[in-house]
Order: sequence, then structure tokens, then C-alpha cells
Amino acid sequence: MMHFLEINQLSYDEVMSLIKRALDLKATQVFPSYSCRMANLFYENSTRTRVSFQIAAEHIGMRVVNFDLDRSSEQKGEVVEDTIHTLSAMGVSVFVIRHPQNGFPQAIAGAFHKNVHVINAGDGTHAHPTQALLDMMTIYEHKSHLSELKIAIVGDLLHSRVANSLQNMCALLGVAELRLIAPKVFQPKIVQFGHVTSSLQEGLQDADVVIGLRIQRERLSLDACMEIDAYRRDYALTKHSLSWAKPDVMLMHPGPINRGVEIDSDLADGPQSFIFEQVKNGVFARMAVLERLILDR
Amino acid sequence: MMHFLEINQLSYDEVMSLIKRALDLKATQVFPSYSCRMANLFYENSTRTRVSFQIAAEHIGMRVVNFDLDRSSEQKGEVVEDTIHTLSAMGVSVFVIRHPQNGFPQAIAGAFHKNVHVINAGDGTHAHPTQALLDMMTIYEHKSHLSELKIAIVGDLLHSRVANSLQNMCALLGVAELRLIAPKVFQPKIVQFGHVTSSLQEGLQDADVVIGLRIQRERLSLDACMEIDAYRRDYALTKHSLSWAKPDVMLMHPGPINRGVEIDSDLADGPQSFIFEQVKNGVFARMAVLERLILDR
Amino acid sequence: MMHFLEINQLSYDEVMSLIKRALDLKATQVFPSYSCRMANLFYENSTRTRVSFQIAAEHIGMRVVNFDLDRSSEQKGEVVEDTIHTLSAMGVSVFVIRHPQNGFPQAIAGAFHKNVHVINAGDGTHAHPTQALLDMMTIYEHKSHLSELKIAIVGDLLHSRVANSLQNMCALLGVAELRLIAPKVFQPKIVQFGHVTSSLQEGLQDADVVIGLRIQRERLSLDACMEIDAYRRDYALTKHSLSWAKPDVMLMHPGPINRGVEIDSDLADGPQSFIFEQVKNGVFARMAVLERLILDR
Repeated sequence: MMHFLEINQLSYDEVMSLIKRALDLKATQVFPSYSCRMANLFYENSTRTRVSFQIAAEHIGMRVVNFDLDRSSEQKGEVVEDTIHTLSAMGVSVFVIRHPQNGFPQAIAGAFHKNVHVINAGDGTHAHPTQALLDMMTIYEHKSHLSELKIAIVGDLLHSRVANSLQNMCALLGVAELRLIAPKVFQPKIVQFGHVTSSLQEGLQDADVVIGLRIQRERLSLDACMEIDAYRRDYALTKHSLSWAKPDVMLMHPGPINRGVEIDSDLADGPQSFIFEQVKNGVFARMAVLERLILDR
Repeated sequence: MMHFLEINQLSYDEVMSLIKRALDLKATQVFPSYSCRMANLFYENSTRTRVSFQIAAEHIGMRVVNFDLDRSSEQKGEVVEDTIHTLSAMGVSVFVIRHPQNGFPQAIAGAFHKNVHVINAGDGTHAHPTQALLDMMTIYEHKSHLSELKIAIVGDLLHSRVANSLQNMCALLGVAELRLIAPKVFQPKIVQFGHVTSSLQEGLQDADVVIGLRIQRERLSLDACMEIDAYRRDYALTKHSLSWAKPDVMLMHPGPINRGVEIDSDLADGPQSFIFEQVKNGVFARMAVLERLILDR
Repeated sequence: MMHFLEINQLSYDEVMSLIKRALDLKATQVFPSYSCRMANLFYENSTRTRVSFQIAAEHIGMRVVNFDLDRSSEQKGEVVEDTIHTLSAMGVSVFVIRHPQNGFPQAIAGAFHKNVHVINAGDGTHAHPTQALLDMMTIYEHKSHLSELKIAIVGDLLHSRVANSLQNMCALLGVAELRLIAPKVFQPKIVQFGHVTSSLQEGLQDADVVIGLRIQRERLSLDACMEIDAYRRDYALTKHSLSWAKPDVMLMHPGPINRGVEIDSDLADGPQSFIFEQVKNGVFARMAVLERLILDR
């Protein structure tokens, strides 16, 4: 594995071996040590993901360069490839890239064939593969019979890179059923895997796992011409709506959560919530990805 | 000790044991190593305090996450408690918080009862307990007979969290006399300990320790309708005014200093100045606080 | 050596010993470990140089404080000397300073005589000594007969601190010939060493080393009233113009490069380019400088 860019570039064995390695790191708390360097290149705000990668890297002995893009050479007209060539010459070998433009990390990765490993930490509305990996790690940790699971994703599926990567992930691992629940205006135009419904009740019925997505208030009113109250009435994850799912349903969310918008606080903090377990697992999932790239170079 | 929030939540023994531990760390330069993580959450500029905590943490083996709040999830509507829950899930256990709002770190701390330790690094005009701790450490290091000391604080006492925490500190440790010197417009509305005077000469008379506070030029002209020259004439720490204190007076200041405003350069750099000794001691005082929270968890 | 400020404050032996130490560090990859702290104080954007110093310092066991000047005490009226005194009291001993004002790091350094070491990481249009050091290290690594070399620098020599430091460097090490090539509007007013020409062909003729400088598009149109096409026609480093130099010419550039402006992409990425080798060498050159300051204190 040279780069880690999209779930659909991985095989079943590759994904399962990453999930198992991540669970192993979590269980044993025995971490290997690799003396190499990682750079965080975030062209979009994301403390959550950036810090998760930083801590993952530090756990396995890597040094981290956090790149403040407001102050970077790119303002002086340097192309990103040269920034990466430059950091690579200084000894950085892994580049974690988040970018608002679909396909950006993939395009960058295409220009590098040795010594430079690119990890996609989220590109536009397209993909967020380490999030899908940590989500599936969390599911597999508690419900390992994936081929029998019904998973539901609720929210703005049209703009969600998390949902896109999860579709590929569920298809690859042979999840029984994936329900994609959203109002018409937020339904995806292309579906890789799963079936779309605008009925929350239909989508949540007997679900083993329910994944809520963040709703951006601005997008609701501007793009969707939908009042927050209307969205909540039909799509919020509440005690009432979650009762349609199985009694031992796992409630997940990639965060950051908008309490009282797409999810109620009593659920987010309740016994069915795995939201902070996802965050915890994220560090181990990213350690596994980093290790894989380092060992395969 | 779960959190470190305000001096008046501590006992005499707790404070004295922190001061003695800090002096011990300074004297021996033998530092323990704790493998845990600290996050700096600064909602107000403060390089001085942030770096002091960072270096203190690194000395005792801790990893530090500096949180760039301009780029954080809180811009996306996440509540601070969820940011802390998230970082805690990633393995951060100590949170150093500075905030412009009085009581903010205390409110946050109230929501957490295990695994999360909050340190108040300054809240609004209310409290700055690690500053009071390092100040008292510096005083005790050179004049340990606290019950015989006359300490004077000069400046904008109305807006000074440092002065507030020092009042509590002096009361707790049984300092003989605390003089709070300020023009009427800068006098505190509530006094925990000490007596207020608007006469610099009366306040500095025979003082063992004189602590100057920073005067904000903007505040002088806007709030106080006082010209800088008028303030200097009546309240500046100069060779002349300091002569009213004891010959071996310790001159202190929490910094950053405005040379030529509240304090003259020849004093700040002179033999009676302990200003940079305070900064040095700050690292050891914060090491002692961090260690206490880690060991007590 | 107390500070590292300008090439013309160094002796031949001092520079040669730094170059040889840097090459030795690069060849052996055996790094000493010094337990001290370095602060990056950058008053001007420069990811490239800042990260190079950070990685250099980390390689030799130093801890690094990156100073975010937007958030610093200096906004509160603190003078830079006090910021440095403060960081020094916290245990920082090496200060890497970049500043838009000529002579700024030198002025700061003049105020400190022990425990504080200042490295000039670029001051205005005046000097950039570690860049000149890494440039000469790269040249010496491949063409050690400096007294026989013809070196050409092309570009905006009037505003280039890199060119200034290179002039001093070439003079000190006895380089045979230095050609300074620029259109009239970009020719330097004072020349330490070398001769100025406005003819690219004359300047590149039989050159052993050609160093391109970055052209700021804004400066071209505003200061020089010169169209980008006119500059390119007469001064761009292209396959055609580089053919005037020796066949084994080394092509160098301090970066960041503007592809298609002062240099063509096929040259920058071609076999004669040492541009990323310069970046790589920069880390070792800076390790050598840091080590020298630490050992000599």
C-alpha cells in the first residue's frame, strides 16, 4: 500500500487486516516505534481529525509537523507538489491531506511514487476513508457478524463524504443491508451501495446500527429551504425514533454533533451511544493505517 | 485534587505542599516522567502562560496538544464539553483553559468527574491561580516568614485576576499585611483580604514585597479617563517610589511589563527585580500542579 | 560563536568547519543529542525555513517552541527583548528569528550576552546566512575546488537577502568568479563581491553553478514596470539559456520556485537541478549551526 486514498481502492483482506490490527493495538496497548515523520496538511478546519492523526503518529514514535497553511509558501505561488517535495527532502514521508476539493489528495498522490505516502483525511464531499475505517472497526468490535447487519445512515447524504466512504466500506465487507435516509433535497445522486428512503421509520426499522450525520444549519435554510423544525420533526434521532431500531442498536455519529439538531442529548450521552468510542477507536485505526504505509514502503 | 481552579478551593497544606514540591523540582532538577497528555485550550492570547505550561508538561514527560481555536470544531457549533470529551477519548487527560469569561473553566470542570482534569489558566477578571502560586513560591523562596511580611500590589486591581488570586493566597498562607494600591477608578469592588489605599506612599511604606500590575493604555484613557502622565506621576514604580519600601524589597510583576508605564526599566532590570525569576519559577510551579493532578487521579 | 547573524562576521575556518560538519552529519546520519530548547520567532511567513530549523533541532534532541506571533504578548506592548528574556527564563536558549526589518535579529542579539543565542533566519532584504551556508555546502559537496568556480546568480538582486549573503560567502571562501545577473531595475546598489551584468548570456557563459532567485510577480509589475513576458524573454532559466553554462552546471534555487516564471519546470525537475538537494542539505547545515552555538556557550 503506497497511499491511503479511498475505500474502493482496497481489498477485503486489506481492510480486515487494518481493522484487526487496530483492535489489536487497542487491546494490547503495545505500540511499535517507527522513526519517521508525518505532516498534517489541512486546507480545511478539522481539529478532531488533525489531532487524532497527530496522537496516532506520536504513539508509534513518529514526529509530526503541523502545517499552518495560512502562513505557508503556497501563498507565495508555490504549487502543492513542490511543498510536498520540499518537506519530503527534509525527511517527511507521510502526508495527511484534507482539502475542500473532491479528488485533491488523489491528484497529489498520483504525482508521487516513492518515499511520499499520502493519506486522504477528507476531500470535499467525496471520501473520508479513515472515518469509514474507524466506523467499521467500532461496529465490528461489537457486532462482528457483518453479513447479517442492517446499518442505517441518516442526514445530509448528498454532501457527506463520510456516507460515501461508508457505502464503499459496507459493500466491500458484505454488510447485509444499508439504508440511506434523507429528505429528497439531501438524497445522493449516485449510490454505490444501499437503498435510499425518505422515511425515517422505514430506514430505522430493526436496524443494528444507526449513524447520524451532522446537519449544517446554514445548508438547511439556504440549499434545502427547510426549517430546522421541519427537519427535526421528520429526521431527528430521538428516543422515539430510535425505538424503531433493534433494542441493542449501536448509535454512532462522526462528530462534531449538533445537540438538539440531528441528535438529542440524552441519546448522544446514553448507553446506546458509541460516539466517543468512535473517537477513541479513530486513534488506533489511524495508527494501523500509518503503520501499513510505513511497513510497505 | 481533581481540578485546579481557584486558590480558595485549596487548603493551607495543599498550597504549601505544591510550593515545596516546586522548589524541590527547581533545586534538584530531577523530574519524574508521566506518560499522559495535556491540551492547551486558550480562548485568549497568552504566549507566556501557554508556553510555560507546555514546557512544564514536557519536562515531566507529557505530550502537549496546542489547540488552535481559530480552526476548531467549535466554529462548527460543537459545545466545549464535547470538544473536551473528544480529546479525552483520544487520550488527553489534562486541559489547561484560559477564557475571557469569568467562571468558564470552573463551569467546564463541573461537567467532568473522572479522567478529565481542568486547570484554570486565567478566567476573565476573576482568577489566575497558577500565577498566584508561582508568585507565592517566589516570595517564599526568599522570605519564608510569611506571617511577618507586608506585601503591596499596585495597579488596576479592579480588572486583575492576578490580584484576586493573590488576595486569596495571602489570606490562606497568613501573610501579615496586604496593601492594595490603586486610583479610585481601579479599586476593587469586593476585597477578600487586605486593605485598599489610593496612596502609593502609604501602600509601599516598609513593604517587603511590591507587585506591579500591567496597565493597559487603552483602559486608562477609555475607562479611567486618566492620562498616562497622571497615572505615572501618582502610581508608577520608580526608583523614587520604591525607596519607600524596605531596602531589601522584592519587586515583582506578572508580566508582560510596559516599560516606562507602570514600571521603570532600571527597576525592572535592577537587583531588586524578581520578574524573570517569577517566569522561571512558573515552569516549576506548573510542573507541581500537573503532577498533583496526575497522581491524584 | 555566540550568535549566527551574518556571513561576514565569520572566518574562513568557521564556515568551512560548519560545512564539513554538516556533510559529516549527512553522511553518517549519527546525530548527537543536546537537551536544550529552541524557539522559532518568525515575524514573516516562511514554512520552509521554520520547518527546516524545527526538524534540525529535533534531530539533535532539542525541543522546539513555535511562537505564534499573531497571539503573542507583543500585541500587548511587550518589547521583543522581554519576550526573549521571558522564554529564556523558561529554559529556551536558542532563538531563530526572521523579521521583515533589516538588522532586526542583529539588534536583538546585541542585547544578550549569555544563555541566549540568536540565529538570523532572514532579515528584510539584508541577509540570510543559513541559506548561504546550505547553498555553499551543496556546491562544495559536488564541486570542492571553489577557487576555480564560476558562479552566477540571476534575478531580483536588489531585494535579495540570499544574494547578499552569497556574495559574502563567495568572497570569504575565495570563489573564482561571481556574476550577478539582473535587469537594471533589479541590480544591487552596493556590491560586496562579484560583478554585475544585465546580459544573461554573458553571465551564464561557462558557469559551473547557476542560482536562480524567485521573482515576485507583484514586484515586477509595480516596481519594475516590466511585463512578465519581457522578464522571461531576457532572464528566464530555460533549456536554451542554461546551454550557455558548462555541461555539468549545477542549477540551484533557494525556493519557493515559480515554475514558468524565473525557471522552467523541465529544468527544475531535471538532472542538473539541485533544488531539492539544497532543501535536504538545509536540515544538516542548520544542525551544524545549532550544535556550534550549543557547544560554544
